[in-house]
Amino acid sequence: MKELKNDLLLRACRREPTERTPIWIMRQAGRYLPQYRKVREKADFLTMCKTPELAAEVTLQPVEIIGVDAAIIFSDILVIPEAMGMELEMRESVGPVFPKPVRDENDVKKLKQINPFEELNFVLEAVKLVKRELDGKVPLIGFSGSPWTLMTYMVEGKGSKNFSKVKSLIFNRPDLAHALLEKITLAVTDYLNAKLFSGVDAVQIFDTWGGILAPEDFREFSLKYVKKIVENLNRNNRQPVIFFPKGVHSNLKEIAETGADAISVDWTVNIGDVRRQVGESLAIQGNLDPTALYGRKDVIEKKARKVMEDYGRGTGHIFNLGHGILPDVPVENAKALVDFVKEFSGEFH
Amino acid sequence: MKELKNDLLLRACRREPTERTPIWIMRQAGRYLPQYRKVREKADFLTMCKTPELAAEVTLQPVEIIGVDAAIIFSDILVIPEAMGMELEMRESVGPVFPKPVRDENDVKKLKQINPFEELNFVLEAVKLVKRELDGKVPLIGFSGSPWTLMTYMVEGKGSKNFSKVKSLIFNRPDLAHALLEKITLAVTDYLNAKLFSGVDAVQIFDTWGGILAPEDFREFSLKYVKKIVENLNRNNRQPVIFFPKGVHSNLKEIAETGADAISVDWTVNIGDVRRQVGESLAIQGNLDPTALYGRKDVIEKKARKVMEDYGRGTGHIFNLGHGILPDVPVENAKALVDFVKEFSGEFH
Repeated sequence: MKELKNDLLLRACRREPTERTPIWIMRQAGRYLPQYRKVREKADFLTMCKTPELAAEVTLQPVEIIGVDAAIIFSDILVIPEAMGMELEMRESVGPVFPKPVRDENDVKKLKQINPFEELNFVLEAVKLVKRELDGKVPLIGFSGSPWTLMTYMVEGKGSKNFSKVKSLIFNRPDLAHALLEKITLAVTDYLNAKLFSGVDAVQIFDTWGGILAPEDFREFSLKYVKKIVENLNRNNRQPVIFFPKGVHSNLKEIAETGADAISVDWTVNIGDVRRQVGESLAIQGNLDPTALYGRKDVIEKKARKVMEDYGRGTGHIFNLGHGILPDVPVENAKALVDFVKEFSGEFH
Repeated sequence: MKELKNDLLLRACRREPTERTPIWIMRQAGRYLPQYRKVREKADFLTMCKTPELAAEVTLQPVEIIGVDAAIIFSDILVIPEAMGMELEMRESVGPVFPKPVRDENDVKKLKQINPFEELNFVLEAVKLVKRELDGKVPLIGFSGSPWTLMTYMVEGKGSKNFSKVKSLIFNRPDLAHALLEKITLAVTDYLNAKLFSGVDAVQIFDTWGGILAPEDFREFSLKYVKKIVENLNRNNRQPVIFFPKGVHSNLKEIAETGADAISVDWTVNIGDVRRQVGESLAIQGNLDPTALYGRKDVIEKKARKVMEDYGRGTGHIFNLGHGILPDVPVENAKALVDFVKEFSGEFH
């Protein structure tokens, strides 16, 4: 393994001292970048995911253009259900669709155990390409959706407002829901281990839809499986795990005990309150309101400073937005944020 | 004022002893009822709101059909911006649209001060009709959107995913945002006072979009104005105020201090935790997951019992869903919930 020149993210995750606060931005390889849109003109979204050269190209863009402290491999969480045998379509202005969603025993039974080195080798190839190109400049993050979040898509079949299908499943057929979650958990574990094996320096687990569950349902249908994944990761180089249960504002104590090194929090909570509640056992990532980047430069700086002040002094803070960067944010605003955090976070360390 | 035969809701809001827990359901006068859909076939949504006889008819339906302990006047929160002079359209499968949203000083200046006894008299007529028909059977609730929630619609002009327009406004032109919020606050206050004058027994303020704000922005752009409204209501008969800041899981202490008698909480928090945090100063409404009504009868009962157990013994609990009832819920499931709460909540009192 090549030594990293900038390992701020890893040290912050491990709560080791850092000179300043590291920053990266969820969805930083995305549509707000003209250079990304140019690649996207040549290939549709899934083709970009499945062509290692293109995925690597857009992964590297934000490191160069806005100067973030980490790269995150360009991909989509739904490559896992596809690898498990589900047909996946990306429909313009609709989003991802599974024309044949998982609804009964037979559908669950049909889902394959994946071999990430086969079905998902395109991601692993992209990881290797990016690692080579980065040449130790910054760490590379790999990611996956949580089993619960993947299951919502697999059962609903498409974007949903009320999640009636997946909620009916967990309420009326908890046995079948758990059987499905077990299968997905195995696939996610194998996938993240393959990414770690291929060279990612950290992994993030996105639980995008954890926030639609009542507290006890979140523990039973989401958190339990995240914990199982974290326990089964092969982290030979102490690669950190970041867990992002978006919109989940209950169960903080339980969330802190998954074995993840860091939790990522959205912008509707005070990051200082979260720190006070989880204690000093965990790093915390976040949590600037993504729409703050619609503000003028002085607004962005004021709000970014507030996040750092709320977190307070010492290591363990990874600066990020509270959710993905929005596609209509001006690039210069994203860069202003990164510059500001790099320049002024030193005083908190 | 005619004496109410069932005043459980009012007593629970005031934390006076009750024999059992009162229950009503947000959006109980809605599409899940075949009788509602029948009325809706004859008239579009806004016509229903503006025809006192139709509004009264659907308001009364759930009291008869599922047996709830309160009626809530059928209306829409967007009648206020319309009364202030904004053109409002209901577009099929899009929802409400303001073709000319509020974007600058001039737009704010043009908004009229309302006289609810003129522009919104149809609501007040409906209130009087319902009160007459109810004949003291159960209390009648009036409602309004919060100034922040109304402003999001008025500025965005239509449903929004990222709320980029209204967020840009509060970040880059807080002065203008506050001027707009002041105007809306006055309108909401006058409107709710006219409803109280016309006979509603309680009011609920819906802050549907409070949950998209960072904690400090929620205090500045939402909570401050809700507090101002509550302070200026003429509650000559101690009519309770219920405040529902949906998806807001910060600022609980500040929310408890608006002067509202009760807060309504969504299903992603434990209602017992909320009770422990706000103490015994406030009643709490909620918070069954609306999708629990997709469950079988035994599932609904188990989950309803859990909500009551979580709240614990004593008065101050108003049973409700954590958000509006969903349109594809079977009526018999809604009725099963109401029956169960009525039959089994006595043991908590």
